[in-house]
Amino acid sequence: MLNRDRISKVQARMREQGIQAYMILTHDDYLYLMGEDRYQPRAIIPAVGDPIVITFKGEEEEVRQNFKLDEVKVFSTVGQQIKDVVGSMRNLFQHVGQDGKIKVGVQMGFFTPAFLLTMFQKANPVIEVVDIAPVMDELRMVKDNNELELMRKVCRIADIGMEAAVKALKPGITENLVAAEIEYAMRKAGGHGTAVPVFVNSGVRSGWLHGMATDRVIEAGSPVVIDIVPKHFGYCANLCRTFVMGEPSQKHQEMYDTYKNAQEAAANFMKPGIQNRQIDDIAKTFFDEKGYGNYFIHGFSHSIGLMFEESPMPTIHPAHAAIELKADMTLTSGHSVLSVPGIGGVRIEDTYHLTQDGAIPLTQFPKCLGIPV
Amino acid sequence: MLNRDRISKVQARMREQGIQAYMILTHDDYLYLMGEDRYQPRAIIPAVGDPIVITFKGEEEEVRQNFKLDEVKVFSTVGQQIKDVVGSMRNLFQHVGQDGKIKVGVQMGFFTPAFLLTMFQKANPVIEVVDIAPVMDELRMVKDNNELELMRKVCRIADIGMEAAVKALKPGITENLVAAEIEYAMRKAGGHGTAVPVFVNSGVRSGWLHGMATDRVIEAGSPVVIDIVPKHFGYCANLCRTFVMGEPSQKHQEMYDTYKNAQEAAANFMKPGIQNRQIDDIAKTFFDEKGYGNYFIHGFSHSIGLMFEESPMPTIHPAHAAIELKADMTLTSGHSVLSVPGIGGVRIEDTYHLTQDGAIPLTQFPKCLGIPV
Repeated sequence: MLNRDRISKVQARMREQGIQAYMILTHDDYLYLMGEDRYQPRAIIPAVGDPIVITFKGEEEEVRQNFKLDEVKVFSTVGQQIKDVVGSMRNLFQHVGQDGKIKVGVQMGFFTPAFLLTMFQKANPVIEVVDIAPVMDELRMVKDNNELELMRKVCRIADIGMEAAVKALKPGITENLVAAEIEYAMRKAGGHGTAVPVFVNSGVRSGWLHGMATDRVIEAGSPVVIDIVPKHFGYCANLCRTFVMGEPSQKHQEMYDTYKNAQEAAANFMKPGIQNRQIDDIAKTFFDEKGYGNYFIHGFSHSIGLMFEESPMPTIHPAHAAIELKADMTLTSGHSVLSVPGIGGVRIEDTYHLTQDGAIPLTQFPKCLGIPV
Repeated sequence: MLNRDRISKVQARMREQGIQAYMILTHDDYLYLMGEDRYQPRAIIPAVGDPIVITFKGEEEEVRQNFKLDEVKVFSTVGQQIKDVVGSMRNLFQHVGQDGKIKVGVQMGFFTPAFLLTMFQKANPVIEVVDIAPVMDELRMVKDNNELELMRKVCRIADIGMEAAVKALKPGITENLVAAEIEYAMRKAGGHGTAVPVFVNSGVRSGWLHGMATDRVIEAGSPVVIDIVPKHFGYCANLCRTFVMGEPSQKHQEMYDTYKNAQEAAANFMKPGIQNRQIDDIAKTFFDEKGYGNYFIHGFSHSIGLMFEESPMPTIHPAHAAIELKADMTLTSGHSVLSVPGIGGVRIEDTYHLTQDGAIPLTQFPKCLGIPV
């Protein structure tokens, strides 16, 4: 269902910032504003007036069913969507174009490919493409009750995925087969796939910055870092745990305890009014105290919702470290791997709901390094 | 293992085209040239000399294990990879910069985000970013024996996924639970996840241009289009089938037969020397004959390999329709959905190996519209 309230807020902010139209090309904002999802979401929100949905002929019937006729304009075509978004934009703003440049907002995140923007810019020389983040980020940051309910649900799905991982983990199994069990359990629990591929990093790969799942066999004594980001109606949870198959080494246990203390202290510290960078400061004191300060990676916490990382996400945009936390944000603690060459990695990440009284954990899988083998 | 032969060919082509360096930011080319994969592949291929791998400190040990010391230079950092790629590039080409602009190639596909290029361009004003496609596409198009073996394997995995789908399909099951069974079966068969999310489009959604898997319940009489793109060591298969739960309507059966005839005729027609657009021409005659010409979407066949769509991919780049087929390409027939509003969709897609003697099907799942319920 079209979210008129959110659209009005977006339009007001667009007018304040002199943006004539927002061209939606990504799932998150399409779902957030239009209340439905498609494989290639394409819509235009003008600063004033009804949204325009650009869709394939074969999807028009369903688009019209999902919206009331007077809510959206529908442009349908036989294919060639990229070309048609470009074309619609040119037709729509022809009259404005004669007076000068038109500012069109676009999301500049991971999912807006460079070639699409280049193509668009070439076909519409009168348009100045600007980043829509200053319009959308502040709105998206604070979750409403409906969003919080979905976040709670997807976090339960993540817990179920991690439970399946622990059940599957045994010396001799491959990372890829552990990933199979995680994905399967999460879909069965109501998950709609994952925002990023499940990662199961074992052995030397436990120290990776990010991960994947390969045919590597997990051996007794091996560390394993498992990070899962299930989706549920577009919303993402982030849950990461580190395990050792059997008895952990003293050094690995010390790293684990250091990380766990840092992660929990950071979560306990989170409250409305503090800056994102202060979470890093708290976590780093624990790393420093045990001599791991040089391994600390900034960006210990990021926001999460319709994107697996959303503003504030300081590892991608360092300026986001200055953003102040607000009540009803959903965010993580434990984004940075503690990776010590020669030993391996530790990462423990949970998703929280920030309230006036502090952070409530939404992912709740127990933390324990050693897995009996 | 570093593929010196491919790297030499790439470097020769770079020199011909006056490109000083290729900045690899995507899995496909990283795997193709460097012979290993990481979550965030970052490497620089200079026009002359050894490749440079930019990696996280915690991954350096493994990178050095995977390559011989005299093969690559390794730049490792504590995080901040985006910033460090930018920085390395600036340092590497400082001396050249004084003489004028440096041409650096980048892949301009779906996985190169606009913001990354903007960030890079801002930090390196002396660099002119150019599309690396004219260097890479011709090489990647023709598969060697090792690649063909991986393509055969991943196509078998796709067949196994479709078999799991048909086993799971029954009135009352959701699209999402069918997707669960497909994913699970493919991972167990050696698949390493999927290149795009599995899609299970039922009911009105069978007519979508592309798809997804939702909580929609599949009902008796409902059409279902299932499209799967498993990966295996980076290589992708593409397999799509259309089903009806029970007895198909006469109209739907006619659409199915038309599509099947078009898809098979197109595949039989494929041979070295023809242009990609001629495949469309053949397929369209079948659509025209039955009165579906207006529903025909151009781009009936695309190449496939380390990307689920690669050059020639005329639906994304219309100019690719002029590309000539060569022996040892792997490509599909049946990319375009036949979507008739009010009835639904049909799509049948297979992956083929093009030989001098014609196209050999690599996906071989049987084609049958009706599923007994």
